[in-house]
Order: sequence, then C-alpha cells, then structure tokens
Amino acid sequence: MKLLRVGPKGAEKPAALDDSGTLRDLSALTPEIDGALLGNPVALAGIARALSFGDLPALDAGQRIGAPIARPGKVIGVGLNYSDHAAAIGAAIPESPVVFLKPGTTVSGPYDAIELPRGSRATDHEVELGVVLGQRLRDCADPATALGAVGGYVTANDVTERSGIAGEPTWVKGKSYDTFTPIGPWLVTPDEVGEPHALSLQLWVNGERRQSGSTGDMVVGVGEVLAYLSSLMTLEPGDLVLTGTPAGVAISKPEPKPYLRDGDVVVVEVAGLGRQQTLATGVRG
Amino acid sequence: MKLLRVGPKGAEKPAALDDSGTLRDLSALTPEIDGALLGNPVALAGIARALSFGDLPALDAGQRIGAPIARPGKVIGVGLNYSDHAAAIGAAIPESPVVFLKPGTTVSGPYDAIELPRGSRATDHEVELGVVLGQRLRDCADPATALGAVGGYVTANDVTERSGIAGEPTWVKGKSYDTFTPIGPWLVTPDEVGEPHALSLQLWVNGERRQSGSTGDMVVGVGEVLAYLSSLMTLEPGDLVLTGTPAGVAISKPEPKPYLRDGDVVVVEVAGLGRQQTLATGVRG
Repeated sequence: MKLLRVGPKGAEKPAALDDSGTLRDLSALTPEIDGALLGNPVALAGIARALSFGDLPALDAGQRIGAPIARPGKVIGVGLNYSDHAAAIGAAIPESPVVFLKPGTTVSGPYDAIELPRGSRATDHEVELGVVLGQRLRDCADPATALGAVGGYVTANDVTERSGIAGEPTWVKGKSYDTFTPIGPWLVTPDEVGEPHALSLQLWVNGERRQSGSTGDMVVGVGEVLAYLSSLMTLEPGDLVLTGTPAGVAISKPEPKPYLRDGDVVVVEVAGLGRQQTLATGVRG
Repeated sequence: MKLLRVGPKGAEKPAALDDSGTLRDLSALTPEIDGALLGNPVALAGIARALSFGDLPALDAGQRIGAPIARPGKVIGVGLNYSDHAAAIGAAIPESPVVFLKPGTTVSGPYDAIELPRGSRATDHEVELGVVLGQRLRDCADPATALGAVGGYVTANDVTERSGIAGEPTWVKGKSYDTFTPIGPWLVTPDEVGEPHALSLQLWVNGERRQSGSTGDMVVGVGEVLAYLSSLMTLEPGDLVLTGTPAGVAISKPEPKPYLRDGDVVVVEVAGLGRQQTLATGVRG
C-alpha cells in the first residue's frame, strides 16, 4: 500500500493511493498515518480490504501532499553508510555506524520548500532511503528480525548544513533546521517494496543529476542498521531512520561547490517510493 | 504550581501537589501534563483556581510518580555550560553552546531505575536544571523573550555513558539509552521558581555528595540558551532542554573513577524543584 497525508500543514488527512492512481480518504478508518496505525496489522488489513473494494471516498488530487507520517517520535540518521560517498568526501568507513539525531520539527512534505537557514553557507542535499518502524525494537541482535519491524519506506532528503558539522562535537547544528527532512510523497508498506537493498536512489538539482546510487551499496543493510540502533535506544512504531546517502553531494564536488541556493529545484526519488520536488528558498550567506 | 504524573508506567494520571502537600487528581481538568497544557494559560489558571478552592480529589500518596511531563517532542542538551565542570574535565568553554539531542525514550521517572547499558564502562551522572517549553519559539534573538517561553522547570539527571562519546563524531552513543533522563518529581511553574539562576544543584551517590553547584554559574543563562537553540530549530511546548551540569561528575575524579555501578543510589536535587532518588541497576561490562 501507498499511504500518504493530504491537506494543509497541521491539518492533513490520512489517505491512500489506490491501484488506479486515485487518492482515497482513510479518515473513516484511521485518525492518522502514524506509529499506532503502522503497529496495528488488523487496521492495515482493513485499509487494504477497503481499497480493494473501492468503496472509500476519492480525494481531490489538487491538494497539498504532506509528510506521509505524522510527527515521528524520533528521527535517527546513519552517516557514511555508502562507501562511494565516504570515499568522495574523504572519510573512512567507520567501524560501527555513525549515528545522529534530527529533531522531529525538521520533517516536512515532499513538495514543501527547503528553507535555507539564515547564514547558510553550505546547505547540501542527501537522497536517502527512509525507514519507518512498525514495531517496537529493543536490543534486537538479529538483523532479519529487525527488518521484520519495518512498517514502511519513504523517499527522504537528509538536508544538511555542512558548516554546522565541520569541527563540531556533534552534528546537531548542521541537521536541525526546520524543513531539513522532506519525506514522501508516500509511505510504502514492505510487502509492496520487496527487497529494500535493490532500490535506485536519484537526486537532481535544476534538472541536472547530482546523485545516483543503489541501496544495494549500503555498507550496513537496513536490518543491521535497525538491530544496531536498537542496542542504543528503544525504537518505536513511527520512528524514522535515515539510512545514509550515496555519492554526489555538493561538498564532494570541485569548487565552487554547488550548495543549494535560493530558487534551486531539488527532485529526489527512490525507486518505487515516489518522487519529491522541493524548492530551496532563502538567501545564502 | 507543582505538576506531576502519578501511576504505573504508560498510564500516569495528571496531578498537582497542593500547599498542604496533598496530591490532587487533575484528570477532570486536563488529560495530560504536556505541551498542550503548558501552552494553555487559561487551563493552567483553572487548575490553580481549583487547587486553591481545595475541591479536587486527593490521590493515594503510595503510588509511583512518573516523569512530570508526557513524552517530550524533543530533548535537547547543552554541554560544557558550567566553567567549573569544563575545567574539571579539561575542556575549553566553547565559543557557542555545544548542543546535543537525546531520544524521548530516555525520559524516565524520578524514582525509576537507571538501567546501566550492556557493556557499560563509564556511566556517569549529571545533575541539571531541566527547562520545559510552554510556548513555541523560533529565531528569537531576545533572551528575555525566550525566558518568557518557559513553561516550567524540573530536576534532571543527564545520565551519560562516557565511552559512547569519547572519540565519536556525535554524542548519540553515550546519551541515548532508555532511562538516561530521569526527571522530576515535579514540574514547577516559573511563577513559583522565580529567578532560575539562583538555584542550588546537588547530587549524591550512596549518600556521598558528588556534585554541588548553582545555576548562577552557568556560562550561558536559560534565556540565552533558549534563544540560541531557537536559531537552530523551532522549540515547541513540551520540549525539554537540559542546561548543563556543574563540576563533580565521575569522569573528573581520580582513578578509579566512581562511575555508576549496580546498586548505587543516586539522589539528585535542584532547590525548589524536588529531589529524585534512582537506583542504578545492571552490570558494568
């Protein structure tokens, strides 16, 4: 299933995209697309059934599409998880995954603006496979079990202000600005995604392809990432995990590095998870 | 007012401590002690009135006291914010505050156990003034205005596994374990706290005083901390900010450094905000 949230910011309705490409209103079946829904197989089966019967009201396709999950309890990122990316920015592959946290307030919709922070000097893009938990996970040592806790996958852009990371003891100052985690358009359930390590990832800026990779090139796969994270903290339904970015980010390019500027159009796609298009706004520098 | 949450984990009731020291049930007035309540002055005034009239049902004092706020949207920490602490651990005062994030799943009650993580080598204590937002704050340049956004203060222990920080590019691996943020017993509203920069902070392990300081020795005061954070991310009602710890943590002591061990009793108090008592459990690795 492809689940999404439709409507004005803060007043999104739960919806699904049916096989004919029509948006269906799920309000009668669930109040939200969130951890409570993703952790409830009975409710999910009911939605699948209603979609197949075609008896859910259609929604106007002209509305805003929001982030496909309501505010996650946690947004956890994994750094340097593609060897080509690590090599391109001159970093060694870490012995254990680099882990960072982003505030939930960074999450925004797939067509919302990316707001460059005041004083932005090096705001960069990172196409990533986003993983949303459907089950609680704590101290899980088995990657296959951990993979079974996935509730869905999303296209994600882990927007990063590089000047807030370089030389800093944490990554918070580069990862925390509002709108720095556009996700969606859809949350796609694992049954429909199949093998999560064979998805192409692509990102274009103003029509020029900047990043192109495959989730097959992850250093640490989805199940292993989740198992590792569950040794550090309890993962809960609705938590969002950003699994790392392949090569091609602006910081790895020759000078003048093509960091995001006001008016740049950023298109991000993970195969099968949909394509987002965001406009960078605000002034660098 | 002193607000708190009483009952089994995950099923706490909202409550208040009245002037006679009796616990009063607030269930009829609010579903939770959270950002929605702290951001609602009318509801807070209604609670104050009901408390003064003495017409709220008393609660059995023998119940568990939980964390005084429901799961915060964000837990944000500020590092090296007391010069005596920075000097004791050999760190320079940073030019701008060091900022880190903790998952909301770290938050636990004032008498719950601190669970030492598997393989714990250097689990340390940090008494701190915890600040809970009552108002939204974004790009606020004025510390006095930012201070006005405070919804309440709590006693906090920013428990930290030092081995997860040393040599790491972020602090996530040392700050993220469940039970690593005991807060409470009470959330005390700003009107009752008065000047937040004149509060003594103390921490004892097994009856021996380990930390003793005053919030007056903060490098960056509460209003400035909030204003700074609001330049990095939007702060929302219910968000928790940990404002740093004074000297006396285990890592600053001579060998063998007195890191927490199974059975240690940790008592933490911020003047006026109540005293918590937690038991460290689990085996150091």
